[in-house]
Amino acid sequence: MSETLEALQRRLGHRFADPALLRAALTHRSFGADHNERLEFLGDAVLGLAVSSLLYERLGRSDEGDLSRVRAHLVRQESLYRIALALQLPDSVRLSEGEARSGGARRPSILADALEALVGAVYLDAGFESAQAVVRRLFEPVLAQGDLQASAKDPKTELQEWLQARRLPVPAYAIVETRGQAHRQEFVVRCTVAALQVERVGEGASRRAAEQQAAQAMLAHLKSMHP
Amino acid sequence: MSETLEALQRRLGHRFADPALLRAALTHRSFGADHNERLEFLGDAVLGLAVSSLLYERLGRSDEGDLSRVRAHLVRQESLYRIALALQLPDSVRLSEGEARSGGARRPSILADALEALVGAVYLDAGFESAQAVVRRLFEPVLAQGDLQASAKDPKTELQEWLQARRLPVPAYAIVETRGQAHRQEFVVRCTVAALQVERVGEGASRRAAEQQAAQAMLAHLKSMHP
Repeated sequence: MSETLEALQRRLGHRFADPALLRAALTHRSFGADHNERLEFLGDAVLGLAVSSLLYERLGRSDEGDLSRVRAHLVRQESLYRIALALQLPDSVRLSEGEARSGGARRPSILADALEALVGAVYLDAGFESAQAVVRRLFEPVLAQGDLQASAKDPKTELQEWLQARRLPVPAYAIVETRGQAHRQEFVVRCTVAALQVERVGEGASRRAAEQQAAQAMLAHLKSMHP
Repeated sequence: MSETLEALQRRLGHRFADPALLRAALTHRSFGADHNERLEFLGDAVLGLAVSSLLYERLGRSDEGDLSRVRAHLVRQESLYRIALALQLPDSVRLSEGEARSGGARRPSILADALEALVGAVYLDAGFESAQAVVRRLFEPVLAQGDLQASAKDPKTELQEWLQARRLPVPAYAIVETRGQAHRQEFVVRCTVAALQVERVGEGASRRAAEQQAAQAMLAHLKSMHP
């Protein structure tokens, strides 16, 4: 095994009994048939449980909505990308020449996927307890960054801050439609960022929930267009 | 412990070391403070990994997209509801009098949530391996229903069948907007069910993906309005 992969295993805190799993986890689909997409599918679920379990323990007084929001914050691409950089994954991922030339080894989506695949590979190699230990070690720096709860902003707050950072005016929210009977009302809300000529709609059982969903959709769009 | 809870544990194939976890898992928030929403948050992730792991093993030749679709089919509310009925959860869930009077004990969302909470409770009680064994036992009848892959229909197919079963005409799809540059195009598609005067939009990196998303949103809406 190469020195790079030895070093990666040390940083990960897991030594693979089956090194083929490690190699597959680091292989982008552009490189060849034995790539990491199935491992990524599995690793996403391993990561989901490891992080949920950690939050369930540490945030003993948070309700389900807060726990879900913090979890979404921790497992989103941006967080995984940072962890992948700390693990120096750009030195280890295997890409086609074309992908490598166009900077694929530093692309957030490729690195976040490889990280998930690595977690899935540890799970297959040694079981859930080992994978959980790796996830806890990797996320420790993120978790140590002060208040976990505060770190998980709701989408409306995050959208407002995203726009402010770019000196753009705040978004506008408007109810488009209200449906259903009294007990089961459903709200449809439109979020408009006039300066960028973008609109997104969201639905929910309350006005606030619909606004949050619209803000989430808007954020996802803005981040994909202006990464 | 009551005879009902003893019988439930036999059906589940797990005997709780901590019976308080079992009781909390069966408690709807309408009943009292020690309810099952946090356990449901955890159980959702346990279920996600247990099912993902099972599919990873059994569908050795499926790609990540197929695996995700089958998983979504297995863990959706309707599947969990059926398993909850087989476990006779309506006899065991604890609800407020008002919820109970209005038929809460047979409501799909309440039963599916209780099932997830039960899985989370087993995980806390005895670890992932035990929870995985319970999930495998519970899903065995679902998995045995023939071809797993075929069972996971894509949303467009499912929507069409939902409408046909009600003798309604097929939905119409139309591109509303195409955004972005050539490499990163984004499609917005509207799905219309004229007979019910409902429209839903979907977005995606391809026309097909946007149609599937619109069909998914339409299905979610139709099912919530016509359960």
